[in-house]
Amino acid sequence: MNDGRLCVLSGGMDSTTLAYLYRQEIGDRGRLLCVSFNYGQRHAVELGYAQRTADRLGADWKLVDLDALNPHLRGSALTDPDVPVPEGHYAEETMRATVVPNRNAILLSVATGIAVAEGISVVGTAVHAGDHPIYPDCRPSFIRALCEAMILGTESFAPEGFRVEAPFIGMTKTDIAMLGDQLGVVWSETWSCYQGRGLHCGRCGTCVERQEAFALAKVEDPTVYERAA
Amino acid sequence: MNDGRLCVLSGGMDSTTLAYLYRQEIGDRGRLLCVSFNYGQRHAVELGYAQRTADRLGADWKLVDLDALNPHLRGSALTDPDVPVPEGHYAEETMRATVVPNRNAILLSVATGIAVAEGISVVGTAVHAGDHPIYPDCRPSFIRALCEAMILGTESFAPEGFRVEAPFIGMTKTDIAMLGDQLGVVWSETWSCYQGRGLHCGRCGTCVERQEAFALAKVEDPTVYERAA
Repeated sequence: MNDGRLCVLSGGMDSTTLAYLYRQEIGDRGRLLCVSFNYGQRHAVELGYAQRTADRLGADWKLVDLDALNPHLRGSALTDPDVPVPEGHYAEETMRATVVPNRNAILLSVATGIAVAEGISVVGTAVHAGDHPIYPDCRPSFIRALCEAMILGTESFAPEGFRVEAPFIGMTKTDIAMLGDQLGVVWSETWSCYQGRGLHCGRCGTCVERQEAFALAKVEDPTVYERAA
Repeated sequence: MNDGRLCVLSGGMDSTTLAYLYRQEIGDRGRLLCVSFNYGQRHAVELGYAQRTADRLGADWKLVDLDALNPHLRGSALTDPDVPVPEGHYAEETMRATVVPNRNAILLSVATGIAVAEGISVVGTAVHAGDHPIYPDCRPSFIRALCEAMILGTESFAPEGFRVEAPFIGMTKTDIAMLGDQLGVVWSETWSCYQGRGLHCGRCGTCVERQEAFALAKVEDPTVYERAA
């Protein structure tokens, strides 16, 4: 039986919690491979956090450089220096500016290719219920369809039982904060802020969401913010 | 109505024919965008041919550099200098060595992202019936599933009626040679050989297939081969 897991790890709360969950699930029996992507995101600072988590979990870590895609996927505040990062609550319409067109399909397709090359049978993404309203590529219907496509596209090359899964798809970020707390996630080794300066800004959508999740989960938030929401 | 077309253009016979077909379909009314990928393939010489075709058709051309993926997608003769390119007929088991894990899913996901960023409603790939036995990511079931995933993953961001299509999926390479001939494809501006030297080698799977397609289609083959099959 193949006990390997590939975790798409951004370095944020959600995917870090997933990496810890996978380590708990497979123990020392299986290989945990964390894969992070540089796609020209303004908050590339998150990548160092991802590496730290992989180290802590005794996982392998691969950084995949997709920076060359940046000029082709224009118009998102996350990759285009001409588009400002919107402030305020994540669910607002303005946060549509943070959509990178088809990002999850691209990242999960690449992750699937790596998993097949490495003989790993499970690819996990930490998309969760709070992502659905804004990001179409974080919805259950998309994840199901993509998983089906990945299975068909790698048939006879992928390990037996290959799948792409999103274990948190029915959970809120608050649920994830509670789960991560149980798993012993070192939250100071996670990064959320889209501004990507030295400290979390405290005002962008993902900073607002981060503070809210810790507060609702009654989990202590060790983050130093430039200015709280 | 959006008459734009994005053609994933390798520079080979099939995708070049698709680019010509799209230009005929949309005439001068719509935008034709040809997108080629550098993924560290041994036969990167094909990219210059793709650019020439785009020029000839008055199309925009984008070269997307995915070379950084190469070390992560190991084990294919197309990208790994340690794996020799097999000779002989394409359908043989040895040609499995030319599989780049999940390549079409990666390329079509990126192409979809670009199409959405550019407001183009149709993404086309030239995969055809001859590809099916070896490459799972060239089969109708995969293309259908991927198209569904791309539509779901870009919902409310993609132009109305967005789709990924594979118009040649029921055609053989011989059919494509006949169609290309009708469309006036300049075959000397196409490249097939996986070896990627100065001339077509004439012995690798795709050279064998090229010669066979021209012969069966009774289309004159202007290609100079190092040594015919």
